[in-house]
Amino acid sequence: MPILQIEILKGRTVEQKREMARRVTEAVSETLNCPKEAVSIIIREMETENFAKAGKLRVDVQ
Amino acid sequence: MPILQIEILKGRTVEQKREMARRVTEAVSETLNCPKEAVSIIIREMETENFAKAGKLRVDVQ
Amino acid sequence: MPILQIEILKGRTVEQKREMARRVTEAVSETLNCPKEAVSIIIREMETENFAKAGKLRVDVQ
Amino acid sequence: MPILQIEILKGRTVEQKREMARRVTEAVSETLNCPKEAVSIIIREMETENFAKAGKLRVDVQ
Amino acid sequence: MPILQIEILKGRTVEQKREMARRVTEAVSETLNCPKEAVSIIIREMETENFAKAGKLRVDVQ
Amino acid sequence: MPILQIEILKGRTVEQKREMARRVTEAVSETLNCPKEAVSIIIREMETENFAKAGKLRVDVQ
Repeated sequence: MPILQIEILKGRTVEQKREMARRVTEAVSETLNCPKEAVSIIIREMETENFAKAGKLRVDVQ
Repeated sequence: MPILQIEILKGRTVEQKREMARRVTEAVSETLNCPKEAVSIIIREMETENFAKAGKLRVDVQ
Repeated sequence: MPILQIEILKGRTVEQKREMARRVTEAVSETLNCPKEAVSIIIREMETENFAKAGKLRVDVQ
Repeated sequence: MPILQIEILKGRTVEQKREMARRVTEAVSETLNCPKEAVSIIIREMETENFAKAGKLRVDVQ
Repeated sequence: MPILQIEILKGRTVEQKREMARRVTEAVSETLNCPKEAVSIIIREMETENFAKAGKLRVDVQ
Repeated sequence: MPILQIEILKGRTVEQKREMARRVTEAVSETLNCPKEAVSIIIREMETENFAKAGKLRVDVQ
């Protein structure tokens, strides 16, 4: 029942998400001692105008 | 002030969301003993490449 | 795979949470057309000093 | 390390988000006593069919 | 209906949260053009063993 | 800037969280192609009365 939510900027390929899901699930399962079947991952993708760090939108940063 | 966030896969109709919101609000209001006006629901829809179970993206599962 | 997160103020009994979980799951399952087994609910409880509406902490409101 | 998530309805301009991010970061930094560089903000935008209050979807409300 | 969730480390006083809620609500209301009454803020506090940056738990960092 | 939130049941040791954070960060960094320094992880722990699956609280399940 570990449930993960991961926020990333848009632009990753399906292949990258596939590998991420596979390896993160493995890491969670092995370290927290639960079956892989119990691990859910929600991926949320953001436009660069929807993330800010230090008060600056990412879209405004070089 | 119950605030609900519900994550679902894309593909539901507005009519389904309408019924879901109505009935979930009723259930929360009656069991937690608060006015319906106090209940907020945020619905988030995911593409099948943005959800994984057991390390596998949903888009890869039959 | 509907995954719900619900934020409430502290103070509900386990019996209230039990009824809420049962009825919300039923409502989601019937309206979104998915098996009850697929529905997960995370409940998070807040102290009144950790919720604000209109700029005022709940702990400060009569 | 304050991490903020803010849910809003679609329709704000980039200029509004820019000002919001700047001023919210300033407010968090000054009141919680942490450097602005430590503050992250995630903005999530909803369609009006994905938010409900009092059991009614926003899209159905005048 | 802007709904904010803010994650912070434990250790802030109620007075700090009070000021934060007041000023963040003001900033959101003025920049996103919505009444203060519409702004909700959920504060979540973490132990230092429940936050990691760069793969290191905060509790392990000087 | 990948930001992860992970919900687990109470009961893991700090050593388990430490290993989880280290390995998940590595997995995210290598597959999504970003520096480890950019990865944040928020861990949230639930009591068994605050998680439900299939309409049943975990505290009620053997």
